[in-house]
Amino acid sequence: MKRSFPSCLFQRLVLKPFREEIKNTINTRGIHPKLVGFLANQDPAALKYAESTAKTCTETGVVFELKKCNREDLEDEIVKANEDESINGIMVYYPVFGDRQDQYLQNVVDSSKDVEGLCHKYIYNMYHNIRFIDKEQTKKCIIPCTPLAIVKVLEYIKVYNPILAYGNRLHGRVITIVNRSEIVGRPLAALLANDGGKVYSIDINGIQEFNRGTGLRLKKHEVIETNLKLEDVIPISDVVITGVPSPSYKLPTSLLRDGAIAINFSAFKNFEDNVKEKASIYVPAIGKVTIAMLERNLLRLYDFQMSKSEK
Amino acid sequence: MKRSFPSCLFQRLVLKPFREEIKNTINTRGIHPKLVGFLANQDPAALKYAESTAKTCTETGVVFELKKCNREDLEDEIVKANEDESINGIMVYYPVFGDRQDQYLQNVVDSSKDVEGLCHKYIYNMYHNIRFIDKEQTKKCIIPCTPLAIVKVLEYIKVYNPILAYGNRLHGRVITIVNRSEIVGRPLAALLANDGGKVYSIDINGIQEFNRGTGLRLKKHEVIETNLKLEDVIPISDVVITGVPSPSYKLPTSLLRDGAIAINFSAFKNFEDNVKEKASIYVPAIGKVTIAMLERNLLRLYDFQMSKSEK
Repeated sequence: MKRSFPSCLFQRLVLKPFREEIKNTINTRGIHPKLVGFLANQDPAALKYAESTAKTCTETGVVFELKKCNREDLEDEIVKANEDESINGIMVYYPVFGDRQDQYLQNVVDSSKDVEGLCHKYIYNMYHNIRFIDKEQTKKCIIPCTPLAIVKVLEYIKVYNPILAYGNRLHGRVITIVNRSEIVGRPLAALLANDGGKVYSIDINGIQEFNRGTGLRLKKHEVIETNLKLEDVIPISDVVITGVPSPSYKLPTSLLRDGAIAINFSAFKNFEDNVKEKASIYVPAIGKVTIAMLERNLLRLYDFQMSKSEK
Repeated sequence: MKRSFPSCLFQRLVLKPFREEIKNTINTRGIHPKLVGFLANQDPAALKYAESTAKTCTETGVVFELKKCNREDLEDEIVKANEDESINGIMVYYPVFGDRQDQYLQNVVDSSKDVEGLCHKYIYNMYHNIRFIDKEQTKKCIIPCTPLAIVKVLEYIKVYNPILAYGNRLHGRVITIVNRSEIVGRPLAALLANDGGKVYSIDINGIQEFNRGTGLRLKKHEVIETNLKLEDVIPISDVVITGVPSPSYKLPTSLLRDGAIAINFSAFKNFEDNVKEKASIYVPAIGKVTIAMLERNLLRLYDFQMSKSEK
């Protein structure tokens, strides 16, 4: 009997359906949604991500334009793109300044074109478990791509229990996330806790617990500071998600619960080589799913823009 | 957002599909499988179960005959039924003598008609994770009805992860069973451990752990005696299954992990009334699924008998 979840299965069961769905939608409807990516840094990882985005877009029928510029010009470039009606979605390869100015830039992108879901409105809604941008509940919020990609992966590998009510499908699951960045770790912890999970969020300063209370009595998650250590939470976690941007960080396989699910979103392998000997499912990277989510968000924004221009 | 798993959903999602499948098979094939049930005790619960079996059989197209007899005559009656070619399946409402003589009677039932899966051959195969009765692996073993019903319920409510390889789909799940009877608790512990789960099996003498080792390295489960207590294992269990034949036994809700799955197969309610406030899914009884499994086993034996008589 096979023990690990092979990556070919992951490609076939998780990634391919997303890509096919996007491709089919674009082909069937005969539309040409356009995404512009701004590259204003010299980070080789960012360039690689941009190239990968371009390749996937070409394959699925999305028009992708990579615009390189100096970081001093980036704000003006974003404003121009906001106003250009031929552009449906805008993304920026962060970090640009690597400080709070990046957060300012995230809010310069018009929310109607924010494929990354990083502007304050979307982030606020996400943290508050508000799932629609309109009162009529016809327009679903945009969720940041990497956290969304991880949610989708968790849905596909059945960590989300489809038998439970929508919005509560992680009830009973214990999930640890080793990363609490504003781009991935913290929003992901909020999303998973809002969906009913009990989440331990780890960064260098300590461990916070995100949950909706006993029996999911709260509408949105609350955050509790704990004195717990890595050694306390990993052994009781059904799912361990890592995103430490360092080649030297390795989560000890010995701490994992037997049959746990291990997911890494760092560009570096945060699990030890023997992780497959203990994990029931191991997902070594989710960058490709992230790009699929970028396209999914683009299509959603495209529809919002069209419904607006029709009015 | 709804928190508990309503029983109407259980009826619709779990029970109805089983019944419909059996009914359709019988109708489509135009067959008339016959089940005989022997009632040789005065237990009102047994009579109720027999009446319920009769009702379900009528609904689904199975010919059911209830034979009442004295327990002294039961062995002869079973032997006669073994030889009667018009009878496809035989079951006995236990307890009859309430001691090891019952185990003897279980083996008097011919294995080719043993719908309850209680004869030694089936039990041995189950404990040893041998899933077929023939070398060609065309004939699947008969599994005892109540444990099988619980397995099927766990499949339907997605405790079994369909993404994992067949035979390993409980890998990563921690399950506690409060009952270690030879009819349900112990076979169930073995089945769930053979499918990859880590099972704590509780009876009045203590707690045993059933598992297939780290990374499921063993082909069949092993059993380890522990010094653990109820208070140690319930809070770390994804699933808690109770089968204590007493109206006074109540598993404390306070011990349950938030979002745990609670399943009761006792005729008495072994969970407290407030279990739904904490459990993500609560299944209060599985008797009806057990009867569906009885019919499923009957159909399987019917086919074995037909393929034999064709040769």
